[in-house]
Amino acid sequence: MIKRLCIIGVGLIGGSLARALRAAGQVREIVGAGRSAENLQQAVALGVIDRYETDFARAVEGADMVLAAVPLGAMEGVFAAIADHLADGAVVTDAGSAKGSVIASAQRVFGAAADFFVPGHPIAGTERSGVTASFAELYQGRRVILTPLPETAATAIARVRAMWEAAGARVVEMEPVHHDEVLAATSHLPHVLAFTLVESLARLQDKREIFEYAAGGFRDFTRIASSDPVMWRDICLANSTVIQAMIERFIGDLQALDRAVEARDGERLLQIFGDAKAARDRFVEK
Amino acid sequence: MIKRLCIIGVGLIGGSLARALRAAGQVREIVGAGRSAENLQQAVALGVIDRYETDFARAVEGADMVLAAVPLGAMEGVFAAIADHLADGAVVTDAGSAKGSVIASAQRVFGAAADFFVPGHPIAGTERSGVTASFAELYQGRRVILTPLPETAATAIARVRAMWEAAGARVVEMEPVHHDEVLAATSHLPHVLAFTLVESLARLQDKREIFEYAAGGFRDFTRIASSDPVMWRDICLANSTVIQAMIERFIGDLQALDRAVEARDGERLLQIFGDAKAARDRFVEK
Repeated sequence: MIKRLCIIGVGLIGGSLARALRAAGQVREIVGAGRSAENLQQAVALGVIDRYETDFARAVEGADMVLAAVPLGAMEGVFAAIADHLADGAVVTDAGSAKGSVIASAQRVFGAAADFFVPGHPIAGTERSGVTASFAELYQGRRVILTPLPETAATAIARVRAMWEAAGARVVEMEPVHHDEVLAATSHLPHVLAFTLVESLARLQDKREIFEYAAGGFRDFTRIASSDPVMWRDICLANSTVIQAMIERFIGDLQALDRAVEARDGERLLQIFGDAKAARDRFVEK
Repeated sequence: MIKRLCIIGVGLIGGSLARALRAAGQVREIVGAGRSAENLQQAVALGVIDRYETDFARAVEGADMVLAAVPLGAMEGVFAAIADHLADGAVVTDAGSAKGSVIASAQRVFGAAADFFVPGHPIAGTERSGVTASFAELYQGRRVILTPLPETAATAIARVRAMWEAAGARVVEMEPVHHDEVLAATSHLPHVLAFTLVESLARLQDKREIFEYAAGGFRDFTRIASSDPVMWRDICLANSTVIQAMIERFIGDLQALDRAVEARDGERLLQIFGDAKAARDRFVEK
């Protein structure tokens, strides 16, 4: 049971955790924090949080658990604002989509020996954002990856694990570097491709007509291009090295496919498409 | 009312048209044709077609409407097999995803003055294939693009239009070259990207684990990579010039994004992602 949970950034991710913990009866009080009083008032009205503060230092006062669910570019500022105001025994965790940059920020602000910070990442979300998009079931059966450091206290890890499990998630632990590679492949690169494709097509002359003839496959394929641009700018900058390597690897593979089309190498095309279909069908079966 | 409809290739596309026309009471008899007797027997058992022939020449005998719904690479062979066996006044149409190559095949086989062939393309489908995936509602509210030539008879166009409208579709006409450009942008390129991404990730060393941490966005983004590899090989070869131009344009845009990440140009990234989101949100609203 969490006595006072402080959620900094009450959007889809933070709001859904609040709703889930409340529904599970696993939290006594939830304090929301953020820059927009309007959004926080809405969160109170929706019953997602009990009260709010726009001053992060005041927001974390007396909280035994603090979740930072803000875009990656805002993490270090949040840490700096709360560092001197945390209650004794408070655990701090985050929901950032890249872990290397968040860990570097935490170490700069909290110190390299800080044992109360547990880096985390819930593998869940939709293309929508904001507290109005939040729902209690978002984490049901979804994975949350924790990437603790050698200095992270086992009790802190256990408390964060218990929180996400109470929200319905399956919690796993992973090395931060490995997390950032896996997510670059399965999430960051696909988002970059979807954003680039839609922006590229939107620049074509007869774009209005082009989108008019798009079918259901296009709608699904580009759904993630409706995601929050600020969040994705920050992810690209935070995990830039791995994402760039993924982009460059993908360009190489796409050039190889282009050459196969140029050479009218039907066998090679069939092999690529067949391997992709087999891998994707296996993934869906699971 | 179609008296005898011959559908060559009774899969998702042909089978769904058969079901829709039957449901609408707009066809008296449906003869299926294809290479696989097993699939055709299944189509009869499902009530999709009345009877079948594996010999295309026999299949079109006495049919007033013939639909070729086979992969693009098989079109010319189908045309050659039926050319000398069509009934007087029969109309032939197709469902190919690229029109330039089908028109070239039709002109080679039927002659440049053939007035009974109406090139067509229903903008509908799912990632599944085969007659078991077919359903009567597939074309409801979806577009069918016809790309008639100057020599195509107005009566032939009208009959094909009426057939698709009876299946619930909205029929539009377009220049063949323009069709192939629009579809390369909204369908062919996205499929190529999805296939390439999944095949590329499947070659990563820890692929099993990588797919394990993929979230809902990845599932949607890669849905089209479960499409039929033969169909897509044929589309890539049939519309190769336009698809290659699209691939190369996309690689240029992706390289520009890579450079923005490299330069840590957050403003540029925000602009690309924001423009994409705006275009995608507009597309979905329609």
